[in-house]
Amino acid sequence: MKACIITIGDELLQGFTLDTNSNWISKQLSKHHVDVGLRLTIPDSDAGIHSALNNVLDNDFEYVFITGGLGPTHDDITRNSLKEFFNCDLNVIDDHHESLIKWISQRGRKIPSNLKSQSTILSISTAIANSIGSALGMKLRSGKTTIFVMPGVPAEMKKMMTDYILPENFTRPDDSQFITIRTSGMGESIIFDKISHVIDKFGNNIKVAFLPSHRGVNIRLKNLSSDLQKMVKLKDEISKVLQSIIFTEDDRDLQEVTGQMLSDRRLTLSIAESCTGGLISKLFTDQPGSSAFLLGGVIAYHNDLKMDLLKVSAETLENVGAVSEETAKAMALNIREITGSDFAISTTGISGPGGGTEDKPVGLVYIGMSDANGVIVKKFNFLKTRKLHREMTAATAINMLRLLLLEKYSTT
Amino acid sequence: MKACIITIGDELLQGFTLDTNSNWISKQLSKHHVDVGLRLTIPDSDAGIHSALNNVLDNDFEYVFITGGLGPTHDDITRNSLKEFFNCDLNVIDDHHESLIKWISQRGRKIPSNLKSQSTILSISTAIANSIGSALGMKLRSGKTTIFVMPGVPAEMKKMMTDYILPENFTRPDDSQFITIRTSGMGESIIFDKISHVIDKFGNNIKVAFLPSHRGVNIRLKNLSSDLQKMVKLKDEISKVLQSIIFTEDDRDLQEVTGQMLSDRRLTLSIAESCTGGLISKLFTDQPGSSAFLLGGVIAYHNDLKMDLLKVSAETLENVGAVSEETAKAMALNIREITGSDFAISTTGISGPGGGTEDKPVGLVYIGMSDANGVIVKKFNFLKTRKLHREMTAATAINMLRLLLLEKYSTT
Repeated sequence: MKACIITIGDELLQGFTLDTNSNWISKQLSKHHVDVGLRLTIPDSDAGIHSALNNVLDNDFEYVFITGGLGPTHDDITRNSLKEFFNCDLNVIDDHHESLIKWISQRGRKIPSNLKSQSTILSISTAIANSIGSALGMKLRSGKTTIFVMPGVPAEMKKMMTDYILPENFTRPDDSQFITIRTSGMGESIIFDKISHVIDKFGNNIKVAFLPSHRGVNIRLKNLSSDLQKMVKLKDEISKVLQSIIFTEDDRDLQEVTGQMLSDRRLTLSIAESCTGGLISKLFTDQPGSSAFLLGGVIAYHNDLKMDLLKVSAETLENVGAVSEETAKAMALNIREITGSDFAISTTGISGPGGGTEDKPVGLVYIGMSDANGVIVKKFNFLKTRKLHREMTAATAINMLRLLLLEKYSTT
Repeated sequence: MKACIITIGDELLQGFTLDTNSNWISKQLSKHHVDVGLRLTIPDSDAGIHSALNNVLDNDFEYVFITGGLGPTHDDITRNSLKEFFNCDLNVIDDHHESLIKWISQRGRKIPSNLKSQSTILSISTAIANSIGSALGMKLRSGKTTIFVMPGVPAEMKKMMTDYILPENFTRPDDSQFITIRTSGMGESIIFDKISHVIDKFGNNIKVAFLPSHRGVNIRLKNLSSDLQKMVKLKDEISKVLQSIIFTEDDRDLQEVTGQMLSDRRLTLSIAESCTGGLISKLFTDQPGSSAFLLGGVIAYHNDLKMDLLKVSAETLENVGAVSEETAKAMALNIREITGSDFAISTTGISGPGGGTEDKPVGLVYIGMSDANGVIVKKFNFLKTRKLHREMTAATAINMLRLLLLEKYSTT
């Protein structure tokens, strides 16, 4: 089954609004074994809408999902543009219109002049209910193609998909055709070199994709045959090669996995951040349940706070500076002692764009990690933008903790 | 000038990866007066790539921007697929290849077998340097269309666009056709009610869009006539009504504006975060130059840290609890005193999904703000997901600081 997704809106093409609808619909369809073969983003114009429809109807897509342009204002033209394209009439769904009037009256608001548009659908379509917004959706057929038309407001679109379109038209979700192996701490080409012989040997009828980011590389397997066991076998063989580089095979983040490892072991963490400025703490506390292991920490952006709150000595700061192995060491040791946590992470570095010197260039960073056995500090040079420098520092620090937990703190 | 953006990747169509490249490129092109008429997302397949190219070349786009599929692994097929489509040869750029080898050798790593692909370009193209990754970009012409091919890794694509493609091919940015009024602290429908009479009176030939998010509402004006003064007049009239609700008319974030206000006034800030867990500090330190005003702070997730590092009394925590006006007050007062900052922000609340009680439900949050004159605490109930609760708390806290600075700390 092949599908196409069309998102309509000038604000998308101008880059003012990030299109998250396409991604969300893609994900749901993947789970329902529907391949998305094409996504289009087009302007609020008859020419754009008609040209896109001609394109997708020519290409024999079984399903087309359209979002956007059903609202009550003058720039919402999707409904009328489709009417012209299909050369049909418009019908008003009276029940829906009356319930909108009732809802608005109850709140003492004025009835907008263009309210009826929200209950108007193509005569060749059936209505799809909108339980949290005003505009009805539509389902229609053209040749072999089934077309769903939905509002662009993400919450309304998602509710229509989840409550009506998916359950009424598609089989229930099944993720078994995909496996995602998530790794941290090794580059894409090295991983590829390490496992390419395994893919050659066991990868027949399995599509293998490498998805790199500055946080790590995801290896995504897609089964193309009816034999799921072969994909599991390939996954097992890849695991044998990559071992602890892999942090999970489900859809959790590195910080989620590491946080869960701490929770499972009933161990606690504190964090002393300089250059990452709260990012590591933010990543851990994004997760529900992080209070089970994260005690908290200190953001010591200014040197005074490194001295006053983290007890880094004035001599250290004067002699070797804030961005140094010694400072990272003191920060990790002292925050652990101050908070009584089992582990502590520290970061100190120069994320840029300013602040670099010849000796200590932008990109330099020290990451400290302490536990009951002492402290280790690693030095890195991430030559990236400020944002990436901070994110790579955070991911590297969290991965160091994960590897330490794996090596020295088994659950059994 | 009309452009088309093509993003290539199965991971995009499967919803595994959110396509942010299209949005970013759209935004840059808008600023350069290039209209994006179409965006396509297509699979890693020759059929998909060739069909998309036929489509865009038939439609007379002046510029086509392609991202994705230039990496070193077997699923990166863009380069070869374009070679077949244009029926040309491939060239290796030796200088780039040697510099990659040198870079890898210096780090004591093994040279990957497929490294040469990263320096390989179409014979009909010129290379675009990649200063932070391995794969070269390409620029080529086909008929009247200029095509740019870039890696899918966002940071690499952005650097290529910013350093080479935009300055060398397009006139410099001019935003005069657009004005964006950014607000914080008031809902969309209230803002609309307040300014709709102004829009009716002064908004002829100006498109006004309301773009709400949980961080605030942006009001976007687009000039449709040759008379820019009319749009400036409308903007001024809206400003008169909304006043301090507006935090900027450029493209800065709330935290950027607030940080700049602190820097301009040579005032400093410290932060004591509980439920936001580092998010506020992270938002401020995302900005270069934040060390000019942010001293740092304490993340007191566990009550022990509220007592030990923030000197919140055991009585307060026992009698009224961590999520209370008194605790927020003590946190804001004490972190300011400990760090010697001019201002301090504190947050304590229940972001959920767990941790709520009948008295203190999920969503409850107290935000404290202290300066030399004392401390104020405000209570909110943001009934949202954990993520939105944290983001709304952070935005509300930063906006409180901005309003305090506006009211009581003028620059003159």
